[in-house]
Amino acid sequence: MPQKRQIHLSAYLVGTGIHVASWRLPEARKNASIDIDYYKYLAQTAERGKFDIAFIADSLAVNEDSHPNILNRFEPTTLLAALAGATSKIGLVATASTTYHEPYNLARLFASVDHISNGRAGWNVVTTGDATGETGRNFSRTEHVEHDHRYERAEEFIDVVQGLWDSWEDDAFVQDKETGVFFDPAKMHRLNYKGTYYSVQGPLNIGRSRQGQPVIVQAGASEPGQRLAARTAEVVFSHVKDFERAKAFYKSLKSKLPDYGRTPDQLHILQGISPIVADTQEEAEAIHRKLHDLLLPEQGLRFLSGYLGKVDFSRYSLDTPAAEVEFPQDNGIQSHFEWMTELIRKQNPTLRELYALLEGGANRELIGTPAQIADVLEKWFVEEAADGFMFIAPVLPQGLEAFVDKVIPILQERGLYRQDYEGDTLREHLGLEKPYNRLAVRDRALSEVES
Amino acid sequence: MPQKRQIHLSAYLVGTGIHVASWRLPEARKNASIDIDYYKYLAQTAERGKFDIAFIADSLAVNEDSHPNILNRFEPTTLLAALAGATSKIGLVATASTTYHEPYNLARLFASVDHISNGRAGWNVVTTGDATGETGRNFSRTEHVEHDHRYERAEEFIDVVQGLWDSWEDDAFVQDKETGVFFDPAKMHRLNYKGTYYSVQGPLNIGRSRQGQPVIVQAGASEPGQRLAARTAEVVFSHVKDFERAKAFYKSLKSKLPDYGRTPDQLHILQGISPIVADTQEEAEAIHRKLHDLLLPEQGLRFLSGYLGKVDFSRYSLDTPAAEVEFPQDNGIQSHFEWMTELIRKQNPTLRELYALLEGGANRELIGTPAQIADVLEKWFVEEAADGFMFIAPVLPQGLEAFVDKVIPILQERGLYRQDYEGDTLREHLGLEKPYNRLAVRDRALSEVES
Repeated sequence: MPQKRQIHLSAYLVGTGIHVASWRLPEARKNASIDIDYYKYLAQTAERGKFDIAFIADSLAVNEDSHPNILNRFEPTTLLAALAGATSKIGLVATASTTYHEPYNLARLFASVDHISNGRAGWNVVTTGDATGETGRNFSRTEHVEHDHRYERAEEFIDVVQGLWDSWEDDAFVQDKETGVFFDPAKMHRLNYKGTYYSVQGPLNIGRSRQGQPVIVQAGASEPGQRLAARTAEVVFSHVKDFERAKAFYKSLKSKLPDYGRTPDQLHILQGISPIVADTQEEAEAIHRKLHDLLLPEQGLRFLSGYLGKVDFSRYSLDTPAAEVEFPQDNGIQSHFEWMTELIRKQNPTLRELYALLEGGANRELIGTPAQIADVLEKWFVEEAADGFMFIAPVLPQGLEAFVDKVIPILQERGLYRQDYEGDTLREHLGLEKPYNRLAVRDRALSEVES
Repeated sequence: MPQKRQIHLSAYLVGTGIHVASWRLPEARKNASIDIDYYKYLAQTAERGKFDIAFIADSLAVNEDSHPNILNRFEPTTLLAALAGATSKIGLVATASTTYHEPYNLARLFASVDHISNGRAGWNVVTTGDATGETGRNFSRTEHVEHDHRYERAEEFIDVVQGLWDSWEDDAFVQDKETGVFFDPAKMHRLNYKGTYYSVQGPLNIGRSRQGQPVIVQAGASEPGQRLAARTAEVVFSHVKDFERAKAFYKSLKSKLPDYGRTPDQLHILQGISPIVADTQEEAEAIHRKLHDLLLPEQGLRFLSGYLGKVDFSRYSLDTPAAEVEFPQDNGIQSHFEWMTELIRKQNPTLRELYALLEGGANRELIGTPAQIADVLEKWFVEEAADGFMFIAPVLPQGLEAFVDKVIPILQERGLYRQDYEGDTLREHLGLEKPYNRLAVRDRALSEVES
C-alpha cells in the first residue's frame, strides 16, 4: 500500500539562529553555540514537532567576518552522538567534507553515530568551497582542489564510504559461544577499492546499523553537484528562493534519477526556508524589523563579504549599488553566487539592501501568521517545488518553538504532515528502504563466476 | 597545602573484556562491543568507583585474527560524546592516531568532547604501529611512515593541536549585546604553524573548555616515545609487568621531565593491570581457569599472530618452543616485542604457554582476593612503580564491578584513594592545573617587541 506523500522537515540547529544579529536579542542565550544542554533542548523541540531531521551544518575555517554562531561551536559528529542520548526518534544529520577527511575515518564517525542513535544518522556530503584558500591553510594544503576535481574526488569518496559501510553482512557476527566462532568469515567483505584518488582495503571496524547505512544528504546545485546527487543522494537541501525556479530544479533533479536506476521517491528535495511566524502579520513584521535594527551595517557588510568570498567592502559606501561591486569569480558556493548575481541584475539593490535581503535568508512571503506560512509550504509541496523543507530559523529557540507550536498543527490538520513518527530510523521517517549489502552481492557474484 | 599523593585509576572499556575468550562466557552480553547502553553502564560503574578515567582504545584496521571485541565497535570520540551525557564526573579519554588524522579535525573532535563533557576529555596520542601495512592500506598510503618519522610527525602534530586549542582566550567571546561586539579580536589567535610535516593557520572554530585543554595521554615506551611523553604527556599508560623494571621506567621517565621545564607531578604513570578478583583465591583461580579453557588453541595462536605482527603460526605445533619461531623485526609495538623476547629467553615457553601468558595480560600475583590485589597495588604505588593503574578487565562488566565493589573500598580505607571526586574536570581529578593560553602569551610578547 503506497503511503500518501507527506511533507518532510529538517531543523537547522545553529546557536541563537541564522540571523547574524540574533545573538543580540535580549532573550538570546549567551554561549548558545557551545551549550550542549541548549542543543539537546533544540533537538527535543524539533522531535516534539515530529521533524525528520535535526541538522548540524559545518565549516572548517573561521575568521573575523564569520557568523557569530559558527566561531565557537561543536564538531558535528560528536554533537550528534551527544544528541542521540537526549532524543529517541528524530534523525541526526551533520555536514562533513570529502575534501578534508579520510574516508575510513569519516565512514567510522557516521557509522558510529548511526549505532549510537540506533539507526538515525545521516551524512550531509559537502566538497567544501574554499575561494579564499583559508580552509586549505588549516589543512597543510598549498593549493585548493578545483571545483570539478572536488566532485570527482567526492564521487570516489562516497563510493569508498558506502563500500566500507557494507564491510559486514547483518548476520556476520554469529557469536556462537559453543563452537567459539565469533563471526562468519564469508560474511566479512573487503572493499579493495582502487581509484584515482583513493585506495582503501577495508574491512571497516564497525558493522551495519539498524537502518543499514546512514542516509546520504547533499546540497550541491551545480551541474556536477546535481549529477552526484542523482546518483547517490537520498535527501537534497536546496536554496532556490523563486517558486518557478524551485519547480524547475525539482523536475530537473528528479528526472535524472532513472539514469542511475533510481526512482524519484528515493530522493527527497527539501527547500531552505527561514520563516518568521507570529500570531499576527504585524507581530511577525515587528520581529523582522527588530532583527534588522540590531544588525550593525559594517557587520552586515562583513557577513556579506564572508558569504560571497573576499570582497573588500570598506572601499564602498553602504549606498553603493551592488552592481558596481566587483565580486570574485571563484570556485566558492556557485549556487549562492548565481542567485545573487541574478538578484542584483533584477532588483538593482544597494549594498544596504543586499545585506538586508541576505541577513536571515528571509523570503518576504514567509513573514506572517501560521496559516499564511502553512499556505506557502502547502503550495510549494503540492505543486512539487519541494518534498519538504529545511527550516532555518532566523532566531532560536523561539523560531523553532513557534513553528512547532503553531505551524505544525495546521500542516497536520491538512493531512500534509505526520501526526507521529511511524518508524524508528531515519530511513523509516523518509520512507527509504534499508539498502542491501552491495559488497555481499559483489562477492557472491564473483565467487559464482569463479566456481 | 600540597595534597597527599593518591592512586589514579583508568578503566579500559572494551566489549566483554580484554580476554580473547571473554565473549564465550555464558553470562557475556551479545554484541557488547556495539551496545551503547552497555557502554554507558560500564562508564557509570567506573564513575561509581570514582575512577579518574573511562578509557577507549582504538585501531584503524581489523582482520580475521583481530580480537573479537574490536571487530565491530564504536568510533571512540563519538562514543565519548555519548558517554558524556550518561556520566557527570569521570574523565573521558580515547585513542586517536597522529599518523592518520588531520590535526585540525582531531583538535576539533577532542575540544568538542571536552565542551560536551564540561571539561572531562583527554586524548591518548598514538602514532600507530603498522607492521603489516594493513592500516596504511585503509588510508590510501603506499608506504608506512617509519617509526622515527612517526614520532617526528607526532611532535609536530601535538604542537599543532595544542596550539589550535589556544585559538581563543577564555574571555574572547564578550557577546556585548549593546555594542554588537561578539568577540574581542585581540583575543583571537592564529597559530600560523609551519613545520616539516604540517602547516596550519587557525584559528580553530571552538574555544577552550572549562579545563582549558583536553589532557594529553600517551603510552609510548620506546626512547622517542619517552621523550615525547616527557615533553607533552600528562598521563602515561605503561605495560611493564616486572616490578623492578616498572620502578626503573617510572624513575627514568620522571627524571626526564625537568629537561622540559616540568615537574614530576605534572605527569602520572599508570601501569596496566588485568586483575581477576574474587572473595577467595580459589574462586579467582577458577575464573582464570574457566577463561583459559574457553580459549580455542588456534584462536590463541591467531591472536598471538595479530598481536606480534604477521607470523604464520600454522607452520608450528602448539608444543613448539617459542624460541624456535621467527618473529619479524619490524616497526610494530616495540615495547611488546621486547617484553616478549625477554620472556621467551628467560622462561622458554611453548607456543601454548606463550598465548596463555598473553591471553589476558594477567599477572599471576593479580589473581586473588580483594586484599591481595590491594596489597599489590599499594606496593606498586607506594614504592613508585606507578602513580596509579590502567585497569584492563579480563571480563566485563563483572571484572569492573568486582573491582569497584571489593577492591576500591580497601584502597579508600587505607587512605590511598579518593572517597569521592573533589573536582569536576579531568584535570582536577588528576591534580593538574588549567594550562595557560600559550598563543596569547606568544602574541603579547610579539606585540611588545614590535612596540
